[in-house]
Amino acid sequence: MTDIEIAQNVKMDKIVKVAEKIGLSEDDIEQYGSYKAKIKLPLQTEKKTKRKLILVTSINPTPAGEGKSTVTVGLGDAFSLLQKKVMIALREPSLGPVMGMKGGATGGGYAQVVPMEDINLHFTGDMHALTTANNTLAALIDNHMQQGNALGIDQRRIVWKRTLDINDRALRNIVIGLGGPVQGVPREDGFDITVASELMAILCLSEDLHDLKARINRIVIGYTHDRKPVTVQDLNVGGAIATLLKDAIKPNLVQTLAHTPAIIHGGPFANIAHGCNSVLATQTALNLADYTITEAGFGADLGAEKFLDIKTPVLGKTPDTIVIVATVKALKLNGGQALSDLATENLDALKKGIANLVHHIKSMAQYGVPVVVAINRFTQDTNHEIDYVKQICADMGIQALDTDVWAKGGHGALDLAKTIIKTVEKPATFKPLYEPDADLTVKIETIVTKIYGGVHVEYSKKAINQIKRFKKYGWDKLPVCMAKTQYSLSDDPKLLGAPKDFTIHVKLFVPKLGAGFIVAMTGNILTMPGLPKHPAALDIDISDDGKISGLF
Amino acid sequence: MTDIEIAQNVKMDKIVKVAEKIGLSEDDIEQYGSYKAKIKLPLQTEKKTKRKLILVTSINPTPAGEGKSTVTVGLGDAFSLLQKKVMIALREPSLGPVMGMKGGATGGGYAQVVPMEDINLHFTGDMHALTTANNTLAALIDNHMQQGNALGIDQRRIVWKRTLDINDRALRNIVIGLGGPVQGVPREDGFDITVASELMAILCLSEDLHDLKARINRIVIGYTHDRKPVTVQDLNVGGAIATLLKDAIKPNLVQTLAHTPAIIHGGPFANIAHGCNSVLATQTALNLADYTITEAGFGADLGAEKFLDIKTPVLGKTPDTIVIVATVKALKLNGGQALSDLATENLDALKKGIANLVHHIKSMAQYGVPVVVAINRFTQDTNHEIDYVKQICADMGIQALDTDVWAKGGHGALDLAKTIIKTVEKPATFKPLYEPDADLTVKIETIVTKIYGGVHVEYSKKAINQIKRFKKYGWDKLPVCMAKTQYSLSDDPKLLGAPKDFTIHVKLFVPKLGAGFIVAMTGNILTMPGLPKHPAALDIDISDDGKISGLF
Repeated sequence: MTDIEIAQNVKMDKIVKVAEKIGLSEDDIEQYGSYKAKIKLPLQTEKKTKRKLILVTSINPTPAGEGKSTVTVGLGDAFSLLQKKVMIALREPSLGPVMGMKGGATGGGYAQVVPMEDINLHFTGDMHALTTANNTLAALIDNHMQQGNALGIDQRRIVWKRTLDINDRALRNIVIGLGGPVQGVPREDGFDITVASELMAILCLSEDLHDLKARINRIVIGYTHDRKPVTVQDLNVGGAIATLLKDAIKPNLVQTLAHTPAIIHGGPFANIAHGCNSVLATQTALNLADYTITEAGFGADLGAEKFLDIKTPVLGKTPDTIVIVATVKALKLNGGQALSDLATENLDALKKGIANLVHHIKSMAQYGVPVVVAINRFTQDTNHEIDYVKQICADMGIQALDTDVWAKGGHGALDLAKTIIKTVEKPATFKPLYEPDADLTVKIETIVTKIYGGVHVEYSKKAINQIKRFKKYGWDKLPVCMAKTQYSLSDDPKLLGAPKDFTIHVKLFVPKLGAGFIVAMTGNILTMPGLPKHPAALDIDISDDGKISGLF
Repeated sequence: MTDIEIAQNVKMDKIVKVAEKIGLSEDDIEQYGSYKAKIKLPLQTEKKTKRKLILVTSINPTPAGEGKSTVTVGLGDAFSLLQKKVMIALREPSLGPVMGMKGGATGGGYAQVVPMEDINLHFTGDMHALTTANNTLAALIDNHMQQGNALGIDQRRIVWKRTLDINDRALRNIVIGLGGPVQGVPREDGFDITVASELMAILCLSEDLHDLKARINRIVIGYTHDRKPVTVQDLNVGGAIATLLKDAIKPNLVQTLAHTPAIIHGGPFANIAHGCNSVLATQTALNLADYTITEAGFGADLGAEKFLDIKTPVLGKTPDTIVIVATVKALKLNGGQALSDLATENLDALKKGIANLVHHIKSMAQYGVPVVVAINRFTQDTNHEIDYVKQICADMGIQALDTDVWAKGGHGALDLAKTIIKTVEKPATFKPLYEPDADLTVKIETIVTKIYGGVHVEYSKKAINQIKRFKKYGWDKLPVCMAKTQYSLSDDPKLLGAPKDFTIHVKLFVPKLGAGFIVAMTGNILTMPGLPKHPAALDIDISDDGKISGLF
């Protein structure tokens, strides 16, 4: 059976019943149909005191697939089977890619969050609210230009782009405002996919409506002719933009196939943004459950680093255990085995490729949080291979457990869950990677040497000039958000495994003052995906009675 | 108090309670928060047999404001006060204008539908689903061009535009696909506001999911180099686009300030489209209530004509009474009085301007449906003026009743309601304006002479060529949707009152095969509004506890 068939064959609990499990009454939630709800904030219920946080991350992603979300969901269901009060907190999928490449964002097999069709399509409208807020701001900027440009904005230096939650390459580079004086001021522009909007990062880092509005007001939308930053505050539209996000800021409650309560809320990119679900989502789960299992985007070098360095200072809570997901297939691919041949046992490739896992274990251990490895088992993996991975981890003093959640759901992660339940009780002393008020360049060098394993950072001439200007603007002590390929620890996607002695090239900085960080671009990061030759849309259909097929 | 303050001071009933009034259980609806719901279709409850339909229309709109929605809402509340089972069916407001010009779309004063903030902002996400479906189709078209253009589409003749629910003049005329071979095929394009999308018209005319998908498949997205129409069916993406509208097709249930059940669903423009709420909305109200009160956009020449000629054949039900809303102020404006001086009594201007009302009464009477006039009273209107309007109507055998719903809610429309309750029982024989299989030009001439009071239709050279091609394509017998200025019966917005001997100029046809009609453009109809010098967004704000201010 396909993922969607498995999902459609399970009878969901009414969301009111799911809410009850975590102590929420009908009045604490806003239902969106029978199986989705928004949780009203601030919570009116008594908050949990246990508040154990488990962060799920992974080795560098490969085309073989690591199944990080699937393991996160299956692990949550295992906690449920063990009668623990648990919540899962995941990122919200983007609709654009759903119409492009097949491949779910709601787990897989018997470890899924549901209703999967709704979550993958419009869900509770958060993405659409973000798109609308983003583009309303864009329209207000262009209207400011059209109506006399009182702020003196340089039309060549407007950095606020438009967005759509659609894979649409034709909108990457466009010219707008054509057609004469009443049709706007002509200028170059472009659309990003909605999840790449700074508003998504802001939504995910905001503590409440007040903080949301304050962050929106700090967004730099462009520069004047004498290079002074122009903010949303200057345009006086922060209130209107925040109003458009009044519901999107509330966390969404759904369930797994095994009825474990799950929050799915916020999904910024893990390269140009920080790649984690919202602070409010994780906070809410921590307040409602004894155990919160959450994930961060891409591999530990991107998602987990940003979770630990950018998100936890706002969240006010650090993880009690970090789970690194690995697969034998992906490790073999990292060791040089061909993608088409990953089903064949190959201990040599595994021995080479495991360097990637070893690297991530060491880099995560620096934060002072206990690390556990989850081997997401595939049918073709041999016992030799699985045992080898376990042995290497054991040699490092790390427990590695194989899981089989795709086929068995929570039953496939019981050992992992039991191990984690013990691990989170160990005293952990979180050590931040860098000092909050260190210089931007010091922060970058710390990440490159301590997390990536590189030796040197090279800045382009443009980046060096930007650093000078940032000092003038007072932006040089902000947290850094590295935009790097997810496929390699280096900035070269072809360098797999655990490369050594490499240099990271910072080509450009993108200041995100609302999100509160400076993005360091180390390559060409695509912020508007395209559609493939055979887009998934060609296979998606709906029957006369509303049953969707071909979604994944 | 402002409209939003009045609305915020009334305690709403839970939507479950509102649903109960019309025989719907909690399982018949999908809640969107506590005060909004979608009604699941097909209905599982017993259907009403009385099914009386009241269509509210108006004289030609003026900047003075006619209050058609306000009268519709107040009239519904009057029916409730008279213990009648009633439902209101209104159009869904567009978000774009909310950020631009102040002025609600949810009624006013004590005759409003609530929650007004939600209805005016994201509501249940219908507009966003339409935007996404529209732009997904656009992305799939451009991707088809990019991936080899197997259908041989002429990139200069792609007629499917992108949309946003935002007033954004800078997106009216754009160039897309710039940046080299991997960034799409460069071409001219533009954005319309979402309500102008053919998908909105389709949603509002669809009988069910099956019909929706069939209509989507019939959409003409462009033409090949040898001028053959290319449809969504040819692109093989009708299923995916329909899937994106699976929830948007369900009618939305809300309430008035007096807790009368109201359906708000679908809102196509009344110029380039047919300007009525959805067939499914009206059908659902007819099935659940004894009396359904619905409105059509702009004046009777546009909205009501299209309701009667385009919507009723799909709905399978014609109105039992037509209510024409007029105000003394608007009639005086039609009679030449200055906008700034409308508060002054002026019987001369009224005597001239009333020609507009008289014309609409006569044109509506042709359909064989009883007509009643509602005078929406303003404080400054004098009794002389009101009595004069009543007398003129009485001379024509038409009852005219003054209403004061802004200040008094349903209590301000009790006489009107009582009159209508009698009127709908009169036997009515609906007479269609034209034969369904008449030629396009015959239909246009019929509308111009019988509804507008014009004498002649002049076609541009381009329009004449289009008619020839339409014959070849087999489109020449389709219903016509006139796109004309709403301010005048003629195509010149300056000709107020009831102009005579004028010619209507058809400049261009826009075929909408999915909606199932041919739009005849008689002027430059703006399909993407702009923002004013001081957009409403500057005054909108949200407090830390989520209270919205400055919305209207």
